[in-house]
Amino acid sequence: MEVVKEKARIREIVEEARAAGRIVGLVPTMGYFHEGHLELMRRARAECDLVVVSLFVNPTQFGPGEDLQAYPRDFDRDRGMAESVGLDYIFNPEPSEMYPQGFSTHVEVEGLSDILCGAIRPGHFRGVATVVAKLFNIVPAQRVYFGQKDAQQLAVIKRMAADLDFALEVVAVPTVREEDGLAMSSRNIYLTGRDRDDALVLARALRTAAGMIEAGERDVSEISEAMQGVFDALPSVNLEYIAICDTIYLQPLEELHGEVLIAVAARVGKARLIDNMVFEVE
Amino acid sequence: MEVVKEKARIREIVEEARAAGRIVGLVPTMGYFHEGHLELMRRARAECDLVVVSLFVNPTQFGPGEDLQAYPRDFDRDRGMAESVGLDYIFNPEPSEMYPQGFSTHVEVEGLSDILCGAIRPGHFRGVATVVAKLFNIVPAQRVYFGQKDAQQLAVIKRMAADLDFALEVVAVPTVREEDGLAMSSRNIYLTGRDRDDALVLARALRTAAGMIEAGERDVSEISEAMQGVFDALPSVNLEYIAICDTIYLQPLEELHGEVLIAVAARVGKARLIDNMVFEVE
Repeated sequence: MEVVKEKARIREIVEEARAAGRIVGLVPTMGYFHEGHLELMRRARAECDLVVVSLFVNPTQFGPGEDLQAYPRDFDRDRGMAESVGLDYIFNPEPSEMYPQGFSTHVEVEGLSDILCGAIRPGHFRGVATVVAKLFNIVPAQRVYFGQKDAQQLAVIKRMAADLDFALEVVAVPTVREEDGLAMSSRNIYLTGRDRDDALVLARALRTAAGMIEAGERDVSEISEAMQGVFDALPSVNLEYIAICDTIYLQPLEELHGEVLIAVAARVGKARLIDNMVFEVE
Repeated sequence: MEVVKEKARIREIVEEARAAGRIVGLVPTMGYFHEGHLELMRRARAECDLVVVSLFVNPTQFGPGEDLQAYPRDFDRDRGMAESVGLDYIFNPEPSEMYPQGFSTHVEVEGLSDILCGAIRPGHFRGVATVVAKLFNIVPAQRVYFGQKDAQQLAVIKRMAADLDFALEVVAVPTVREEDGLAMSSRNIYLTGRDRDDALVLARALRTAAGMIEAGERDVSEISEAMQGVFDALPSVNLEYIAICDTIYLQPLEELHGEVLIAVAARVGKARLIDNMVFEVE
């Protein structure tokens, strides 16, 4: 496995591979890998001839007062993990390589970017859409892999890729969870002591919804109230939202039908956590 | 020459050509061709193995009250002209092919988009940057051709292409003028009777500046005042701006040095006209 810092070099590698008829996969990440990232990489490894993981803690998707400086980093460990699943390249640019002086373009997906997490993190999805558009051009892969855990990010990127006519397939990979149900996240490192137990409330609320849907409940407000009750029982956790919506426009549903996204966000100690489940409702 | 309406089809054609090692050129246009467009096409024809001209009157770059409906169109004439210079393909999509239901992404170049013409046409350069980013992905050419006549558009597109890491070269082609100096424009069709004579004031003001620079003048306000004087002599023409600026950020210059853009915009009768000259000043 090779570490590449320059845009021109990784593009050359990918273009050569594509000219030779190979399928290239890209796994965009911010590093500090966990089993969720490894799952993205394994899936890409299984489906593509050449796999690039990009590792870039993108400053433009962090707001003022967010955890850009504190965001966990461990490049050597990440390199070892990527190597262990047989990846070909890590693209690990410096911020100055991605945002040279004079940089002034952004990509924005209207509607999807200022709701849910976007309402709490203004500018976040603009930063995501912009850096991902850049990565799509720097690493011209046929297949790109994103985690279902970041459901809104996934919706934003799918929409951006379709709207701007990027010639690639966005592949969504299911959320990987700890044994007790906590969704894997690089930010779980912030959870200490009691926070780690409290954090289970997100998955617990989602499982509550899952159980109700399984049992035939189709009333959105009933499900929402039951989930709210799960959070109410744990006042140390600061619930940001419970959303029951469609998976494409992320608009609130009045009745459960088709592909339904149930997503939650909450502050647990110093961590801001998100989780979701997708249901196919008849 | 073939006319292609579908994005998927033109991309397939271009990808096949590139896989065979051919150089592909793209000439994005809104049609109603004149000698300026032909010059772009001839240049592309001379430099590339396969040349696609896109012909799409992009609704998102017209503001409310602008001339989207009135914008001149003559597809059969355009097809004949493109054929006469030996082009390979016209990509001529319907608006619904470019902006299907649910479309909600835009590309914006900050700083460059809200000055000069952008101050008068809010949203215009956002519409331009967005459709051009789409065209870059739909027709993945190595070389794309734009006219120097639209100097601000050229600056916006060069910046967008660099910022979003599109792997292509943006080629600027010099403005083509009528014998009397009027810059070619599809909108010159709006000029009738006396307006046609009045329209020469833009080129006249630019030639005044050129003469002064040639004679050694380096004082921006002297040049600007002299140009203003040329417009003042023709009160039927409504001057929008005279800009003396750099060619990259389009920021006003205090002294003439290096590559200098002098640009003017004015309303002449029903037409809004722009023109410019670029000077290399020692």
